Amino acid sequence: MTLSPLAPKNISDTPSIEGVRFATGMAGIKYRDRTDVMLALFDKGTKVAGVFTRSKCPSAPVDWCRTQLKRGKARALVVNSGNANAFTGRTGTDAVRRVAAQAAQAAGISAPEIFLASTGVIGEPLDAAKFSGLFEKLVAQAAPNGLLAAAKAIMTTDTYPKVASAKARLGEAEISIAGMAKGAGMIAPDMATMLAFVFTDAPIEALPLQHMLKRGVESSFNAITVDGDTSTSDTLLLFATGAATAHGAPKITAPGDRRLKAFRTALDEVLRDLAFQVVKDGEGARKFVSITVEGATSKISAKKIARSIANSPLVKTAIAGEDANWGRIVMAVGKAGEPADRDRLAIWFGDIRVAHKGARDPSYDEEKVAAVMREPEITIRVDLGLGKGAATVFTCDLTKEYVAINGDYRS
Amino acid sequence: MTLSPLAPKNISDTPSIEGVRFATGMAGIKYRDRTDVMLALFDKGTKVAGVFTRSKCPSAPVDWCRTQLKRGKARALVVNSGNANAFTGRTGTDAVRRVAAQAAQAAGISAPEIFLASTGVIGEPLDAAKFSGLFEKLVAQAAPNGLLAAAKAIMTTDTYPKVASAKARLGEAEISIAGMAKGAGMIAPDMATMLAFVFTDAPIEALPLQHMLKRGVESSFNAITVDGDTSTSDTLLLFATGAATAHGAPKITAPGDRRLKAFRTALDEVLRDLAFQVVKDGEGARKFVSITVEGATSKISAKKIARSIANSPLVKTAIAGEDANWGRIVMAVGKAGEPADRDRLAIWFGDIRVAHKGARDPSYDEEKVAAVMREPEITIRVDLGLGKGAATVFTCDLTKEYVAINGDYRS
Repeated sequence: MTLSPLAPKNISDTPSIEGVRFATGMAGIKYRDRTDVMLALFDKGTKVAGVFTRSKCPSAPVDWCRTQLKRGKARALVVNSGNANAFTGRTGTDAVRRVAAQAAQAAGISAPEIFLASTGVIGEPLDAAKFSGLFEKLVAQAAPNGLLAAAKAIMTTDTYPKVASAKARLGEAEISIAGMAKGAGMIAPDMATMLAFVFTDAPIEALPLQHMLKRGVESSFNAITVDGDTSTSDTLLLFATGAATAHGAPKITAPGDRRLKAFRTALDEVLRDLAFQVVKDGEGARKFVSITVEGATSKISAKKIARSIANSPLVKTAIAGEDANWGRIVMAVGKAGEPADRDRLAIWFGDIRVAHKGARDPSYDEEKVAAVMREPEITIRVDLGLGKGAATVFTCDLTKEYVAINGDYRS
Repeated sequence: MTLSPLAPKNISDTPSIEGVRFATGMAGIKYRDRTDVMLALFDKGTKVAGVFTRSKCPSAPVDWCRTQLKRGKARALVVNSGNANAFTGRTGTDAVRRVAAQAAQAAGISAPEIFLASTGVIGEPLDAAKFSGLFEKLVAQAAPNGLLAAAKAIMTTDTYPKVASAKARLGEAEISIAGMAKGAGMIAPDMATMLAFVFTDAPIEALPLQHMLKRGVESSFNAITVDGDTSTSDTLLLFATGAATAHGAPKITAPGDRRLKAFRTALDEVLRDLAFQVVKDGEGARKFVSITVEGATSKISAKKIARSIANSPLVKTAIAGEDANWGRIVMAVGKAGEPADRDRLAIWFGDIRVAHKGARDPSYDEEKVAAVMREPEITIRVDLGLGKGAATVFTCDLTKEYVAINGDYRS
């Protein structure tokens, strides 16, 4: 697997987060000679928030996490790659229970405080026996640094590990946020999983955490698409250890607390950074594309139209071919089923307006547009001229490599 | 452009339809050394029904046809390839009027009785002057045979012309139906047009025609998808000359007339034949795939789920790779947003059940499934186990050729 041309230039470990320790190991679930399990251990008092796939066929670990999340408390996170434990029936539910039980015993904690995620092939039973004896070693090894190594252990068709971090003030204290993600998400083929985990030492209760996560996800993970295929396993968890209380960080219990402003900005930044990295590692991706729709009748309508453009195979193949094919943008606006008026539409590639009032902009210079299309990052803007609704969606192009990667046989 | 491997073995002209005459010519709109305009002339008293794209950005000819259709009468049909006259603003509306006026004058009929369609690139102004003097020649040449030649004149990225015909009894008389279609429809890139025209000598009024067309389209053109991209120009018109009254066919005025049963069956057959030919000529298509969803809570729900499967890039690339990747079917069911219960799902490729009660069917033979996947025509069946709603959608695979064809520059 060659490195995505959109990969960050430097990939280095993030600063450690007080109250979190990481370890990785080899369970030999599918891959050979590489790590495929990561364990994160959290200090007592760690709070957790999470958002999950909207699929009606969620994986067994997603079911498990949804149940445990109600208590808002976490002591550990276990993630494996090589098998998604999705559509595995009762066997899958049993496997989740057995893995949690093994980890709980090794770490001396209770199973319901362990969060689980799996990524890999759908429909293959996950053999819990593969983890036998592994958690004892991982618990012994667990150390504050190691988020980058953990991000590597959960990779599937990813071409690089995805980590991000930020610092912010909370009251008078400086707090840290760090996170990781995997997998080109909805595009990941058999892997069918977008996973992201974010950690902070800020002392924030589960309720405000959940509020911020739900809000933050709208302009990050819920604003990206690679192929419109929503996975059975999408999981985003945010853990807050509260260790920063020792440095004077105030304990936050209410969602509306104004002291959260800087934290929220930093969290949004980390979520967006990770989400963009997922798009940039989309299978076969050569272009990173931002699609902004303005002038819609509502924000929701704008997002639907932006998604219709971002998921159109004709738009995506045109971008792969470096073709400023705005006719296909018109097509995708038209098919979205949302209010639109052909005769008010305006379309830009980069800063160049190519269409205006329902027809080609007579003044546009094809050469300048061609130069925009040759860039690795492209912005497309559509003004519907109807209202004030606006939204941006991020995607990548659709290349022959995508077809090659996903047309290969499972085994 | 190499012939689609799914093309019919024999392509021959259809029997002529009394009351319809065809002619084709070269306007040089975009292509050189090939016909790009077709004219059909209808005898006085011809009735017409039509269905059009649901796009919010319809082409100028679609706007025109919608307006003229209200009267239900037709004397001519003019179709050009090489330019879709879509998103061309006031220029486009003017071009439609001018082309209709030229044809009307040449044929000695009134412009509002002429139906127009255009297929080709979006956003380029259509130069009505290209048709200058052409219609006089076409009117002089028009002859009863020539539907196949007409089907060739409206091709764009099609690799073969698509015609179909059937006969049926109406009262004591035998009536004929013949039709043509072009363009792999919603997948057609810059061409962005699925056009189909059906002709009959049956004496049926516009109202019952419209009823039958709307019903027939649900299991034919509205049940196919190549890439989920709805065109700005989709047009399906049904013309009934009524010439069969001379052979004793009864005049039909009411939609519920029981004598229409055989006609309706024959019409549905022609619509389905043409629709399937469009899928089989989908860009880069190597496999024709029927996807049936049963056990849904309603027919509409079943169709939504079938479409979600049929439009999933991951499902389509797996089929291109001859991979019975049922995990991706689960994913596509899950993301459809319709009622589904993971633990009741069953999935078949051909006759082989691969998944059952929310998990892999332990008895399935991978070798036998692999043999099914190597066939050029593949059926996929999903039983949701919830209700009685069922629907079938027809699609093709997603190959590297699709990306190549659509990633090439417009010019």
